[in-house]
Amino acid sequence: MTYHAPVDDFAFLFDHVVDFAQLRGTSRFEDATDDVTRAILTEAGKLCDEVMAPLQRPGDLHPAHLENGVVRTSPGYDAGFKAIAEGGWIGMSADPEYGGMGLPMTLTSAVNEMMSGACLSLQLAPLMSQGQIEALEHHASDTIKALYLPKLISGDWTGTMNLTEPQAGSDVGALSSKAEDNGDGTYAVSGQKIYISWGDHDLAENVCHLVLARLPGAPAGTKGISLFLVPKFLPNADGTLGAANGVKVVSLEHKMGLHGSPTAVMQYDRATGWLVGAEQGGMAAMFTMMNNARLGVGGQGIGVAEAAYQHALAYAQDRKQGRTALQNGTGTILDHADVRRMLMTMKADTFAARAIALSCAMAIDMARASGNDEWRARAAFLTPIAKAFGTDTGIATAEMGIQVHGGMGFIEETGAAQFSRDVRVTAIYEGTNGIQAMDLVARKMMDGGEAAARLLDEIETLAESARGTLPDLAEPVWQASESLREVTEWLTAQPDMNDRFSGAVPYLRAFARVLGGYMHLKAALSDQDGAREKLARFYIKRLLPEHVGLLAHAQAGAEDLFALSAGEMVS
Amino acid sequence: MTYHAPVDDFAFLFDHVVDFAQLRGTSRFEDATDDVTRAILTEAGKLCDEVMAPLQRPGDLHPAHLENGVVRTSPGYDAGFKAIAEGGWIGMSADPEYGGMGLPMTLTSAVNEMMSGACLSLQLAPLMSQGQIEALEHHASDTIKALYLPKLISGDWTGTMNLTEPQAGSDVGALSSKAEDNGDGTYAVSGQKIYISWGDHDLAENVCHLVLARLPGAPAGTKGISLFLVPKFLPNADGTLGAANGVKVVSLEHKMGLHGSPTAVMQYDRATGWLVGAEQGGMAAMFTMMNNARLGVGGQGIGVAEAAYQHALAYAQDRKQGRTALQNGTGTILDHADVRRMLMTMKADTFAARAIALSCAMAIDMARASGNDEWRARAAFLTPIAKAFGTDTGIATAEMGIQVHGGMGFIEETGAAQFSRDVRVTAIYEGTNGIQAMDLVARKMMDGGEAAARLLDEIETLAESARGTLPDLAEPVWQASESLREVTEWLTAQPDMNDRFSGAVPYLRAFARVLGGYMHLKAALSDQDGAREKLARFYIKRLLPEHVGLLAHAQAGAEDLFALSAGEMVS
Repeated sequence: MTYHAPVDDFAFLFDHVVDFAQLRGTSRFEDATDDVTRAILTEAGKLCDEVMAPLQRPGDLHPAHLENGVVRTSPGYDAGFKAIAEGGWIGMSADPEYGGMGLPMTLTSAVNEMMSGACLSLQLAPLMSQGQIEALEHHASDTIKALYLPKLISGDWTGTMNLTEPQAGSDVGALSSKAEDNGDGTYAVSGQKIYISWGDHDLAENVCHLVLARLPGAPAGTKGISLFLVPKFLPNADGTLGAANGVKVVSLEHKMGLHGSPTAVMQYDRATGWLVGAEQGGMAAMFTMMNNARLGVGGQGIGVAEAAYQHALAYAQDRKQGRTALQNGTGTILDHADVRRMLMTMKADTFAARAIALSCAMAIDMARASGNDEWRARAAFLTPIAKAFGTDTGIATAEMGIQVHGGMGFIEETGAAQFSRDVRVTAIYEGTNGIQAMDLVARKMMDGGEAAARLLDEIETLAESARGTLPDLAEPVWQASESLREVTEWLTAQPDMNDRFSGAVPYLRAFARVLGGYMHLKAALSDQDGAREKLARFYIKRLLPEHVGLLAHAQAGAEDLFALSAGEMVS
Repeated sequence: MTYHAPVDDFAFLFDHVVDFAQLRGTSRFEDATDDVTRAILTEAGKLCDEVMAPLQRPGDLHPAHLENGVVRTSPGYDAGFKAIAEGGWIGMSADPEYGGMGLPMTLTSAVNEMMSGACLSLQLAPLMSQGQIEALEHHASDTIKALYLPKLISGDWTGTMNLTEPQAGSDVGALSSKAEDNGDGTYAVSGQKIYISWGDHDLAENVCHLVLARLPGAPAGTKGISLFLVPKFLPNADGTLGAANGVKVVSLEHKMGLHGSPTAVMQYDRATGWLVGAEQGGMAAMFTMMNNARLGVGGQGIGVAEAAYQHALAYAQDRKQGRTALQNGTGTILDHADVRRMLMTMKADTFAARAIALSCAMAIDMARASGNDEWRARAAFLTPIAKAFGTDTGIATAEMGIQVHGGMGFIEETGAAQFSRDVRVTAIYEGTNGIQAMDLVARKMMDGGEAAARLLDEIETLAESARGTLPDLAEPVWQASESLREVTEWLTAQPDMNDRFSGAVPYLRAFARVLGGYMHLKAALSDQDGAREKLARFYIKRLLPEHVGLLAHAQAGAEDLFALSAGEMVS
């Protein structure tokens, strides 16, 4: 049962759904030709199938562990990481000046998703580095860039992000780590950070931490936070490594899944760090990294969804059980309507989530290449949707994959359960999906709903143009978009944020459902009478109607939510 | 963080929602007075809180394991099981002639649910015995009853059910285990059985297996199956134990959860067995056991949902994080709208699922006590709904409980993840939830939808009577019931079973959603302006509307489901 990277699906999406060719009209990405793009997807797919996928089970069975203060990674991870690094995959979208390939984020997103499907635990390591590379490119001094970027891009060193502290999770402004100016251009960073993915390991010679901390006298909350780069080993100017820094791993967490990825508690004890960005400008710099990472985490969910789908489909195509009334069946459980329902749901949702994530990546690329504010606003609006819907789809799809396996799904040996356990964290880290939804209905609607309206206009224009050719698909998508528009207008008109927040998660999900309908409709228009149209029909007939219940929920307001007292909440 | 059995919620449901008092009007259950009922719930609650709940983590951390062919159970399980047995809880509903208490299944269901919330792995052991007791009461000879029932009821011996074989899961008719007549009233049983819960252990002196097998020359499929009782040790006529029988544990499964419950592969090698029920009458006898077990498994889901809710609520009431616009808040994350949304969903769904399961148990009791066919049909109709919705609610609620915990939810130490891992199997065993849904739309609708219609009539009568007092709750419940009626009529009119099956799972879920609205409305009417009404409003406003999307899905027919060829299903 091996993973097969969905290269063809990406190629189809690039050509027919997200209009990748637009990028070639910009000077920044004019080199991203069809040939180059296809070659990259194919090469990455090969790495996923042949090198990374075989590391999926060993990571679960032989978790990363702490040995005398040093983290030892799972068997085979070392060679796997080297293959990723040597292929240049870490720096795909990084600045060519420092060794990157300068490719569009859309392409990087595709590759990251494929790698996540192959081996989520290992893929998280390069993903963390990519976030750090982007933060440094935007906010670090030239000296730091020249020293760190080539090493991070080559994979000689890796990156982490250190935000969370025991009392400061979703509320990052509550953090209390400290930094003091050493007077020599460096700072002494002290504090404890938790949930640090790949906080330490033996895959690379250095681990570089981006750490949020407060300078003396800094204001409370997020405004008083600065960002520091704190390497495990202090580099010399020539890139060779010097003394160990004042940072250590206190412990690794015992997690539900993702065992191959060490999640560390890190202790900083007057560790030497360098300021990245302005003093008190830490949150802005961190958000550069986080937005990238949020889209990346959405892709992790989708990658696992794809892998879980393939895994369940292979099982279904092999497993003989029971008879059905179906004529010309396969003689396997694929002939059973309910198994088919599950697999079609998995496939249709994975496609929808993938198309949404790629659209988000396209908006990021177009914003960068064109400087256009509408693209920027679209990227900002789609990021929380791509993250939350991508990861929810990963969780739901992996869960359904277990069910397709029947009793075997609950047995660890099949690997179906691992997908479910691994992907579960993606709805939590990089901002829980609740935080994503709050971001969507608050910050991302500060424009009065303009970015949302522009998306809805686009959906309805397509639906109108499709009314003649695919009326049974176009009409429900148009109707759903109109319903969504009404609720969007209602939400943006609510002055009390709690009325928005109380429906935020169902609203985000409804938006994703409608966007999914749009993506499927687009696909169907490019592949009439083919498999794409059939998949679109399944989605639009069976899954899109979910938006009705979600929108009712989204528009319920906060009153009933807080009607019970804390005492009454207890059974 | 300790589990607290929801005794008061059961008392409320008994008095105001499922009309437990009806039972006292029957001669069979005239002794089940308020005092007795309340005392039993309270006593059971104490056992759950004090004895069973502390065994929840140890079972996960120290799984049952095989040691030189013998299964060793988790630390503390021995004492826990003894406490359950000595309290008389195994034989609560069993025949007093053999040491049982003869209490209504409704009360047993309540106690089983509470025990499942306290420690699912351990609770599964007495649940299996209860199923066996019921099967023997109905189908075994008097000699077998006299010998086995007192021992099973006292917990000196325990019971298992052996249906599944590698090639025969959902399709039990494909099984190939054999039995040959020894000519002395016994049979020689041979074959391999898998997924045998509590197939062996060290909690009791004997383990009694009910094994499905074929006699020589038996017809293929379910018609040719007979049921045999095969004890681990052959009992003498006085109940003392003789020689070991030809049955052994081949291995234990490594499961995603429920580590405290040993899941065995059993090998029967000309093991001595006794026929239970008629030759070739095995399926009928097994269904007695399975229906009981299906309701019991639904209760397992609900129990875990309750425990996961309590666990998440306690965390939320303790965790300080971020600020909200809420006035007079608690200062914890309970003030955040999205945390509230999750907890209210967990609470409202747990209540709905519990009320549905108890209604099913009431119908079983009333059918037994009165012999009335309408009660029997109702019990049959509600069983798959109680099983599937109870377990789906368990899975969804445990999953949401993880999310309430944020990052801590993914860390095993908190216990939130364990609920999710443990409860996952309940949607699979005792007939997957897909099988439940197929049972609902096929066998349970062979009456042309009469049992369904009677339920809908009851819902609408209540909704009509509530229109004056609680119009905003009554109206949506009435409307939802009417929509459900339309789809029910459509389904029963479909001659092609695949058209029913393709919408079976969403239909079952829609039925549960509407029933949940009915239960909440009933509760609200008994507690106007109180917490029950507020919870009902949350459910009816936010969760009930889900039925719209589900019914669209239920009515989609099979065509689009099978539109893709097996080849096109591959990405």
